[in-house]
Amino acid sequence: MPTIHIELHKGRTLEQKTACARAVVNAVKEHLGAPPEATQVIFVDVEKPDWMMGAKLAEGGPAR
Amino acid sequence: MPTIHIELHKGRTLEQKTACARAVVNAVKEHLGAPPEATQVIFVDVEKPDWMMGAKLAEGGPAR
Amino acid sequence: MPTIHIELHKGRTLEQKTACARAVVNAVKEHLGAPPEATQVIFVDVEKPDWMMGAKLAEGGPAR
Amino acid sequence: MPTIHIELHKGRTLEQKTACARAVVNAVKEHLGAPPEATQVIFVDVEKPDWMMGAKLAEGGPAR
Amino acid sequence: MPTIHIELHKGRTLEQKTACARAVVNAVKEHLGAPPEATQVIFVDVEKPDWMMGAKLAEGGPAR
Amino acid sequence: MPTIHIELHKGRTLEQKTACARAVVNAVKEHLGAPPEATQVIFVDVEKPDWMMGAKLAEGGPAR
Repeated sequence: MPTIHIELHKGRTLEQKTACARAVVNAVKEHLGAPPEATQVIFVDVEKPDWMMGAKLAEGGPAR
Repeated sequence: MPTIHIELHKGRTLEQKTACARAVVNAVKEHLGAPPEATQVIFVDVEKPDWMMGAKLAEGGPAR
Repeated sequence: MPTIHIELHKGRTLEQKTACARAVVNAVKEHLGAPPEATQVIFVDVEKPDWMMGAKLAEGGPAR
Repeated sequence: MPTIHIELHKGRTLEQKTACARAVVNAVKEHLGAPPEATQVIFVDVEKPDWMMGAKLAEGGPAR
Repeated sequence: MPTIHIELHKGRTLEQKTACARAVVNAVKEHLGAPPEATQVIFVDVEKPDWMMGAKLAEGGPAR
Repeated sequence: MPTIHIELHKGRTLEQKTACARAVVNAVKEHLGAPPEATQVIFVDVEKPDWMMGAKLAEGGPAR
């Protein structure tokens, strides 16, 4: 039943994402007691320019 | 005012999505009493490899 | 595999939500071909004051 | 700490998004007291056909 | 049509949120060309303990 | 920069969530190469009745 959305900069490989998701599923199982059968991990790729940090914006420079 | 996000595997046609959204708008109208004018449906396509199921990950195989 | 989030004003009963979710699951099955076993519906209650409409804000009045 | 997601129709330029994000970061700073260093703005482009308006669907016409 | 979700620590007043949302609606209008009638702002209150910063966690201390 | 939302049934303790978040931050660091300073984990408690499983709904019984 846990549903986990991971927003990240585009560019990671499927191998990286799979290894990460496996560790997340294990963390959720160990620490929250949630069975892997009920756990989903969804990766949401974000293009770098679409992810803007307030600190950079406040300086008046580019947003990343 | 209801806003509905439907995350699904990429690959459905616009016709499928439109028919689905129409049924969802009707369901929201009939069962929640929400007027269609205030209802929005947003489809979020997810690439299959980005949607990982815990059960598959726990088996140590590929994540889908 | 479809995951559906329905944001709505707080106040609907469990009966209303259940009937709505059942219709949504059927819509997703019929029009997207997604099996109910893989479908989840999550209701997200939003307090009315937290949901602000741009039209009301632009008029300078209260936001709802 | 505020995280802002802006869903919008695809097609705006990076310049438009940057100017918008800067104004949003300032709004959050001025009205919520949140420091820009802790604020993030994420733009989520939505393809027009994926964003369906209930009013259009209820009329039986195209969904946009 | 822009839908804006603002996640923030619980505790702001309705007045603060309304002023912030009004500024956001204006920013979206000015910089993205989106009409206020089509813009919605949804505030999502997050309890402080539910929002965990990686830097704090990595230090092994409390997560906020 | 990764932002992780963990939706889960209400009821876990802060200790459980903190331990889980720490493991998630480490997983993201190890497998995605993302620095903890840029990682946030947000827990989203969902009331059990608000999380409906399609399989249960399709059987015509209660939704959980």
